[in-house]
Amino acid sequence: MTTVVSDLQKTLAEPDESDLARLDAWWRAANYLTIGQIYLRANPLLREPLTPEHVKPRLLGHWGTSPGLSFIYAHVSRLIRHTGQEAIYLAGPGHGGPALVAAGYLEGTYSEVYPEVSQDEDGMLRLFRQFSSPGGIPSHVSVTTPGSIHEGGELGYVLVHAFGAVMDNPDLLAIAVVGDGEAETGPLEGSWKGISFINPERDGAVLPILHLNDGKISGPTVLGRKHADEVQELLRGHGYDVIEVSGDDLPGMHLRFAAALARSWGRIREIQTAARNGSWDGTRPAWPLIVLRSPKGWTGPAQVDGVQVTGTWRSHQVPLSGVRDNPAHLAMLETWLRSYRPEELFDEAGTPVDLIRAQAPGGDLRMSASPHANGGVLTRDLDMPDFREYAVDVTAPGVARAESTRKLGELMRDIYRRNPQDFRLFCPDETNSNRLGAVFEVSDRAFMERVMPDDVKLSRDGRVMEVLSEHNCHGWLEGYNLTGRHGLFATYEAFAMVSASQTVQHGKWLQEAKHLAWRAKVPSLNVLLTSTAWRNDHNGFSHQGPGLIQVVLNQRGDVARVYLPPDANCLLSVADHCFRSRSYVNLIVQDKQPQLQYLTMDEAIAHCTRGAGIWEWAGTDDGTMDPDIVLACAGDIVTMETVAAAQILRDRLPGFRVRVVNVVDLMTLIRPKDHPHGMDETLFTELFTDTVDVVFAFHGYPGAIHQLVHGRPDADRFRVRGFIEQGTTTTPFDMTVRNKTSRYHLVMDAINNARRLPRGAADLVAWCEAQLARHESYIAEHLEDMPEVRDWSLDDQDRRV
Amino acid sequence: MTTVVSDLQKTLAEPDESDLARLDAWWRAANYLTIGQIYLRANPLLREPLTPEHVKPRLLGHWGTSPGLSFIYAHVSRLIRHTGQEAIYLAGPGHGGPALVAAGYLEGTYSEVYPEVSQDEDGMLRLFRQFSSPGGIPSHVSVTTPGSIHEGGELGYVLVHAFGAVMDNPDLLAIAVVGDGEAETGPLEGSWKGISFINPERDGAVLPILHLNDGKISGPTVLGRKHADEVQELLRGHGYDVIEVSGDDLPGMHLRFAAALARSWGRIREIQTAARNGSWDGTRPAWPLIVLRSPKGWTGPAQVDGVQVTGTWRSHQVPLSGVRDNPAHLAMLETWLRSYRPEELFDEAGTPVDLIRAQAPGGDLRMSASPHANGGVLTRDLDMPDFREYAVDVTAPGVARAESTRKLGELMRDIYRRNPQDFRLFCPDETNSNRLGAVFEVSDRAFMERVMPDDVKLSRDGRVMEVLSEHNCHGWLEGYNLTGRHGLFATYEAFAMVSASQTVQHGKWLQEAKHLAWRAKVPSLNVLLTSTAWRNDHNGFSHQGPGLIQVVLNQRGDVARVYLPPDANCLLSVADHCFRSRSYVNLIVQDKQPQLQYLTMDEAIAHCTRGAGIWEWAGTDDGTMDPDIVLACAGDIVTMETVAAAQILRDRLPGFRVRVVNVVDLMTLIRPKDHPHGMDETLFTELFTDTVDVVFAFHGYPGAIHQLVHGRPDADRFRVRGFIEQGTTTTPFDMTVRNKTSRYHLVMDAINNARRLPRGAADLVAWCEAQLARHESYIAEHLEDMPEVRDWSLDDQDRRV
Repeated sequence: MTTVVSDLQKTLAEPDESDLARLDAWWRAANYLTIGQIYLRANPLLREPLTPEHVKPRLLGHWGTSPGLSFIYAHVSRLIRHTGQEAIYLAGPGHGGPALVAAGYLEGTYSEVYPEVSQDEDGMLRLFRQFSSPGGIPSHVSVTTPGSIHEGGELGYVLVHAFGAVMDNPDLLAIAVVGDGEAETGPLEGSWKGISFINPERDGAVLPILHLNDGKISGPTVLGRKHADEVQELLRGHGYDVIEVSGDDLPGMHLRFAAALARSWGRIREIQTAARNGSWDGTRPAWPLIVLRSPKGWTGPAQVDGVQVTGTWRSHQVPLSGVRDNPAHLAMLETWLRSYRPEELFDEAGTPVDLIRAQAPGGDLRMSASPHANGGVLTRDLDMPDFREYAVDVTAPGVARAESTRKLGELMRDIYRRNPQDFRLFCPDETNSNRLGAVFEVSDRAFMERVMPDDVKLSRDGRVMEVLSEHNCHGWLEGYNLTGRHGLFATYEAFAMVSASQTVQHGKWLQEAKHLAWRAKVPSLNVLLTSTAWRNDHNGFSHQGPGLIQVVLNQRGDVARVYLPPDANCLLSVADHCFRSRSYVNLIVQDKQPQLQYLTMDEAIAHCTRGAGIWEWAGTDDGTMDPDIVLACAGDIVTMETVAAAQILRDRLPGFRVRVVNVVDLMTLIRPKDHPHGMDETLFTELFTDTVDVVFAFHGYPGAIHQLVHGRPDADRFRVRGFIEQGTTTTPFDMTVRNKTSRYHLVMDAINNARRLPRGAADLVAWCEAQLARHESYIAEHLEDMPEVRDWSLDDQDRRV
Repeated sequence: MTTVVSDLQKTLAEPDESDLARLDAWWRAANYLTIGQIYLRANPLLREPLTPEHVKPRLLGHWGTSPGLSFIYAHVSRLIRHTGQEAIYLAGPGHGGPALVAAGYLEGTYSEVYPEVSQDEDGMLRLFRQFSSPGGIPSHVSVTTPGSIHEGGELGYVLVHAFGAVMDNPDLLAIAVVGDGEAETGPLEGSWKGISFINPERDGAVLPILHLNDGKISGPTVLGRKHADEVQELLRGHGYDVIEVSGDDLPGMHLRFAAALARSWGRIREIQTAARNGSWDGTRPAWPLIVLRSPKGWTGPAQVDGVQVTGTWRSHQVPLSGVRDNPAHLAMLETWLRSYRPEELFDEAGTPVDLIRAQAPGGDLRMSASPHANGGVLTRDLDMPDFREYAVDVTAPGVARAESTRKLGELMRDIYRRNPQDFRLFCPDETNSNRLGAVFEVSDRAFMERVMPDDVKLSRDGRVMEVLSEHNCHGWLEGYNLTGRHGLFATYEAFAMVSASQTVQHGKWLQEAKHLAWRAKVPSLNVLLTSTAWRNDHNGFSHQGPGLIQVVLNQRGDVARVYLPPDANCLLSVADHCFRSRSYVNLIVQDKQPQLQYLTMDEAIAHCTRGAGIWEWAGTDDGTMDPDIVLACAGDIVTMETVAAAQILRDRLPGFRVRVVNVVDLMTLIRPKDHPHGMDETLFTELFTDTVDVVFAFHGYPGAIHQLVHGRPDADRFRVRGFIEQGTTTTPFDMTVRNKTSRYHLVMDAINNARRLPRGAADLVAWCEAQLARHESYIAEHLEDMPEVRDWSLDDQDRRV
């Protein structure tokens, strides 16, 4: 350890009297403000005796976790003050919102961001009354809380956010408080292993603080009640150096926690220094982790009505209820509030006294003011290569094949190369399988556990993030995004539902952030769904589920974007757009298998820019006359079927006017009043007419299209085919048959819904039925002979296009 | 330990020569059949030299995990044979499907279930050719695999399924193989703690076997590469007694694994015997767990083209590719296949020889034939109390209030009482919060960690399952259902998205099971969503998300059911129906807060039986004439707003004919060709007319209704209001305003879309706008004064109904 670090660590470990006085005062103030937010609507400084009228009629908020959160916050602030360490604070138990709001208020950040919540009596009253109020702020740590990148409402993600935040952020320390309720969730338990992917040379550090207070809403927790040695074994097994602090005595707890924090920080600096000066042996360090055991509701009323409250689940929310009607409870509340001696903490004006101000670090070092927690201010545009240079050469539509995602891999390879600290790909062990492996030309997979000679593209220096956990991948990317950096989460389409709730919650965060001028926009959350329902040849039904599309569709229009590029050049154009965008959830859906290519790069750019367009070459209608039917499509496989269907109609029903419309940007279908990408009605009518029936072949569940086109002229005329939950291990063509989306189904749909039918239509329907019967009997006869079926359906059929 | 157990354990631990011969032969046969499924389309017994024509043109399937799965299976079968232990086998790495299919085939079960796959050469060829074939079987362990309750496609749920299976199943041992890829997922990591909830007196046992073979698709795993002592610490920290077996030497591995299995079984029996004869001290036992380290692709080709395959990720799928075109690979395949000496394993007819047959247990003890893995055959109807006895007394609609879910709690209390081994409630720490606490009158929460004197309704004898993990709750219930028992998963609506992928995957399982005559129907998966978006007063936006409804809507009609009971009596009627049903996913959505009650029990039963109906008392239309507008609703809060809107129209626009339609069973809206609950068109028209506009107030995202009514007469006339992602910590009334679903919005919608307008309509629109403006200004003026806003909106407003 360097002398400087070692001296600092010693200072930190042994707070002197003035340190203790500051810590104690700051903590008392934070607790006082927390209770004030939950209870008070008047008399904020208790300058008068407390009366029922001073108390809110309905008491909302969570006290139990709050004093522990503030205790930790105070100590980390002291650490920052002494060391200049850049740090952010993530409150896993995000329901402790008032504690984090109080911290920002005491540090002055809150008033800087919200000047009306000033550091005086009026401001304090506003702080109290806005809490959990319709026009005010939510009860949880939220987007409105300065210094936060983590809401903590849906439990489980505090460590993934913290690890994502420190990747490529070598000077950042992320303090991640894990509640023992949260520690029971699957996503949290699956996230301790983050240290197996953190490189101390290039990444910052996460200091997890497992805050065991033994209670959740209405009972104890598993970790709270396991033997302490088992908890330690568990965490050591995850690879941590466990430091335990336990008790409720003061100032003993201050002294012990200060020592634990000092030791943790010293250890982190030691690890980092060694890694950065070349004296590291390359093995995964045992990073420090603190287990803090303190009573739930610490410093609150011990017993209420003869029942123990502090230290139990009963202090989870509001320990004293019925305060307005129960004089004894009112008196207890007053005693409780006065126990913090507010008169010592705030001056005549209601401003925090110097003792408290002196506890906070300065400027951007205040955790509530950290630019890392408002990552948009640190965001740099990616240095993007020209995506046109990766174009697939398309001489005629629908002839050549390519694995479209492979081109995206090449684009990302060069983004990696040009942006060595600002871009990462996150993928559950499927980068190669998803044909994105070109990135490995530039970067290995990150891995801090043992690397063996036979391993390929795997090293501690790698920056491609593979872990078989959608929760980790998604959450790491969120943390990376919210601290200002760019990336992509690529996953098997069906298993995107594993992390669907994270997509929902991150969307909510972005939606709410848009209302806050002080929150700078951050890089978009880019999600690529590949290995899709239609081409999961060797897996089957569990791997076939396009559900995430509708999850994103239900998000607000100012955030949600869904793209279904039909080929490689469109994918490149869409990806370029997504990587440049800010604060969206960009969902891109495209399969990885070899696909027909349709558009030249110039055509692709024009097509993607409009979001949807007529493919004149595919149909028999040039857009100038009313067609007999519109065949629309969104998604790669269904586009191939649609193009094939149009060709069948062209060949076999001369004179039948078929228009083919391809949709890349699903949101163009929505009315413009509901989504900024929504086509105006003129354009919509130009594409889809306003009376001709539309046979729409869709990649996902058909209901999504019905939902999108609602309110469009005569929306009933849209006949949608899509994935209707029919699947197994089978050929791509058989998938379209099972889901009634094959070229033959589309041809029959076109005929059955056309406004006028030329001669020969009945014959063509019969022919289509014969083709389908041929397919069925082929499969029945060749039950065990899958490969021929596959050849027949995929190659032979496709060559006809 | 009893003498019998101890003697058995000794026998088990020391396999003799004939044991070893059986194990070895069975394992060789299983491996041979596994490779045959992946590669062969002819010459199944290798009676001729292998030619390219014998090999499938496209090679699908996963070899890597399979030999390990079969190795374990063989040893557990031996255990069963010696002990008579009832056991089921759950393959976490479900992609090892051919191994489990091979096991069922060798045990004869496969041919019993699928007679065309007979135990002879023809049957074996069929077995091979059907694998991963369109008309055949999927590549994963699936519904079609006898003996399975676990697909293993979406990784992470093997332990939750296993723990659910053994609850209240004292004689059952669930062997749960955890792959080291799967072990990286959050849900799996969060599920080790199942033993903190398993009572050895009343429940069976799970024996987890962590199969570390170090590789996933394209790289190593974290647990595979951590130091062995860290892995052991981790698992000991979870509370297990860890037994490790490692290597690839034979017969050494057989001897060591047999000893480990014997020790595990002995320890389990010891724990159970003590618990059941009263000599248990009540502390959570340290249940055994085996770590098996064996090479990935064990017994396969060590190297291919000079590159190491066995023991690496390269053996994950098909170790030898291009076999038809590469004579060297073809020769390696033949050598590999012949290395198992098929001529010793199958007789002239192709039937497994006696040595192999002697390895399998008899009858139902064969794991592939266990009735526990076809739980429907064990399912008993619940002994149900008469739900009418829990009725809320309703003297007039919309006057009294009740917490509807409290009544459900009382019903479930008595279901618990009457069915002490067949029913459980699963809930993430929210049973009381969700007003279901009456169950605690009969059963405590289950908890095997330390119980303290201050704890309430918490004990090792409890059977109410609370753990702060939706993944555990959902998965345990699935395991409980699939082994034939009944239950309910109750959760906060928004956080149902955490386990949405489990709902999807379980729905897929049930959908596919319906096609198999031999699979008996199982109790439905009942999911109650409460603490809904509209009433998350003290939490806020992260807790507001009705996304699961659309997830279930997208499942097939033969499985998916969604109910939105408007009041307590409807909830009771719906719940009674759901608890009696089989093999559905029943989603019930209802808030827990005090709500207006509308229907008497008789009315509720009639209403729920139809699924939707006209509420004549609420409107001004008795169904005999065409109304001016239809106000439809589905969901409790929006029903209140709809009833209030109808009253405003009744009071203020006399002569305006308003019909109120309430929908309980959302699936009635779908056309009958798409869902068995779908109303026929006559009934649909009777309710909704076929021309009058419908203002539909919906609990969830509006798009869901557009999706449902597609294809109904003039579906464009449905104007849907619902949750549009507007929320925060606020009052219920403010939530309806933010989402444009308040009574005033509905009145204005009704007027704007009515077919004719009486005088006074413009005035009423102005009045509604004024009411909304009053609300907005009230909130703005009383920014910090939430409680009054709350009172005004909820109570004062509601009393007007």
